[in-house]
Amino acid sequence: MLQTNGKRVLEFCSLEAVYASSEYLLRYITGFVAENGCAIADKNGITLYTDNRYMEAAQKLATGSDVTPVLYSQKEVLERLAGYASVGISFNETPHVEYLALEKAGVKLVNIDEALEEAMSVKNAWELSCVQRACEIAEDAFNLLLPEIKEGMTETEVAALLEYNMRKLGAQGLAFETIVAFGAHAAVPHHETGATKLAFGDEVLIDFGCRVDGYCSDITRTFLFGDDGKHEEFKKAYAHVLKAHELAKEKIVAGMSGREADAIARDYLAENGYGKLFTHSLGHGIGLRVHENPRLSPKGEKTLENGMVFSDEPGVYVAGEYGIRIEDTVTLENGKIKSFMHKTDRNLIIL
Amino acid sequence: MLQTNGKRVLEFCSLEAVYASSEYLLRYITGFVAENGCAIADKNGITLYTDNRYMEAAQKLATGSDVTPVLYSQKEVLERLAGYASVGISFNETPHVEYLALEKAGVKLVNIDEALEEAMSVKNAWELSCVQRACEIAEDAFNLLLPEIKEGMTETEVAALLEYNMRKLGAQGLAFETIVAFGAHAAVPHHETGATKLAFGDEVLIDFGCRVDGYCSDITRTFLFGDDGKHEEFKKAYAHVLKAHELAKEKIVAGMSGREADAIARDYLAENGYGKLFTHSLGHGIGLRVHENPRLSPKGEKTLENGMVFSDEPGVYVAGEYGIRIEDTVTLENGKIKSFMHKTDRNLIIL
Repeated sequence: MLQTNGKRVLEFCSLEAVYASSEYLLRYITGFVAENGCAIADKNGITLYTDNRYMEAAQKLATGSDVTPVLYSQKEVLERLAGYASVGISFNETPHVEYLALEKAGVKLVNIDEALEEAMSVKNAWELSCVQRACEIAEDAFNLLLPEIKEGMTETEVAALLEYNMRKLGAQGLAFETIVAFGAHAAVPHHETGATKLAFGDEVLIDFGCRVDGYCSDITRTFLFGDDGKHEEFKKAYAHVLKAHELAKEKIVAGMSGREADAIARDYLAENGYGKLFTHSLGHGIGLRVHENPRLSPKGEKTLENGMVFSDEPGVYVAGEYGIRIEDTVTLENGKIKSFMHKTDRNLIIL
Repeated sequence: MLQTNGKRVLEFCSLEAVYASSEYLLRYITGFVAENGCAIADKNGITLYTDNRYMEAAQKLATGSDVTPVLYSQKEVLERLAGYASVGISFNETPHVEYLALEKAGVKLVNIDEALEEAMSVKNAWELSCVQRACEIAEDAFNLLLPEIKEGMTETEVAALLEYNMRKLGAQGLAFETIVAFGAHAAVPHHETGATKLAFGDEVLIDFGCRVDGYCSDITRTFLFGDDGKHEEFKKAYAHVLKAHELAKEKIVAGMSGREADAIARDYLAENGYGKLFTHSLGHGIGLRVHENPRLSPKGEKTLENGMVFSDEPGVYVAGEYGIRIEDTVTLENGKIKSFMHKTDRNLIIL
């Protein structure tokens, strides 16, 4: 059941009204996306302005919610906005040309980017269910992929097959560009998937995710394509990365800062000699964007709260040799970590 | 070989310098995309500001072009911009928050959206080669799809398979959300691909495209999944839509207005009783966006020029019964239409 965020945003920014027209914020506030659409939220609820093409679908989705879909009229929208003492908009999301048009119409505009960032970092039940579904699809797609991986396939072919599986299972798009890295490519955290062919004994790192109603999943798995007996260092490091991943799941609790959460995995890896090889942060918030608040990093001062969704992704990278990352999308529920990932193996897979 | 567009944009807007930071315009001006990157074009060439992650790739791509990649420094960029008498930016593409930062740094900003629209509508040889490749991939993917279409498949499954084929063949993304419409769904020009299953005798309309280096292809094919003998009206209309499509290819010449081009197909369909059933325009410009200038419509007053890329897509729609659209991506070369599509059949296919 759709839960909208108009009321929540109004509470966070303490303004009379909020206006949104970007696909991203329209989706956040109303749960709905329409080309050339916009929304106004005030104390009476949310008005979704859309055109005839979307009206039927909007009415269906809005049933039982505080959204009222009406036909878009620029004149009506501008006149109504000009009537408020002040209107909150995102200066990050609003093109300058639109800002000028609103200003010209006499609308008193206030930047709500900080309030939005805060509001968006804690998800409601409907948003959590979208992330949950996006995670299930990603895991099912990965499990369908594994038996299809053959020697000689390129990184791009593996990515194409994985993306096809997600699409078939109901994903409405990718969360980000799929990373498939064979062999030493895995040591490059943002490797560009290419034409390299898979050989026996290669390690494989796959970082991917999809979208359901705009909400993202984000998952990384690292495994071996056959064991050529040359992966002792890799296997040792894998066990430590997995332990760091699990420690984070056990020990992160609501009320901690992002920095304290990050330190759980970072300290463990440092104690075991991998400190300098963990070259990125432990996690990032996940929602309508695949990188948002909170930040689980040495600089993350924000407090982690129930309902936040983020990644748990420690990694170890040795340039020219190997890279390991094990990532789940997780949330905080009743003060503790709950993973959305239950269907794929985190123990080292050897195909 | 990469041909950049910094010089072209400067000529169209007659300013000392142009600044771009959106992915879209960065790609247009430099041929390159980098997260958090930006570019300044002036009479000495184009400076591409990027970070260490992208430097190697940028240097490789820039070889032999007027692009010089350097490490990004916000201070350097702002100081340099403040030194020009005036700097062109796109008010459509620049978020208001970025506009404020530029203004605060003392940069004198001028809106170049109109000049950009004009400049972008005529493509250089490199841009044409990207569109050509995107069209070849789309056609090859369609030909691979046809023998895989089976009774009982859903619209979404057909779309997933087609997208997989494009990805495998080297597409770097979709040009837009693939439309697969079975039966009477084809009468809805922007049908949302769904869970409807394919039955014997159904018509199938597929509107799709992919991207190569950001540039789009756009193609629609309509065909029958078996002939149940109930498609006499459909077949008659198909022949007329195809004739309208071909007439447009024969008769559109450089120097015509978009309105005159549109009229070629529109008049023919009207003469044959389909006037009210052709419910959209004949075509739209195609480039880094799948809808851009020129407009081939009753309102298109701009003159068609050599090097423009647009769609030729007449259609006939009877609500609740059938829909037909036949679309190629084409260009004007030496004053005449040249289609990028040579590999798929435009005659009625009966699977």
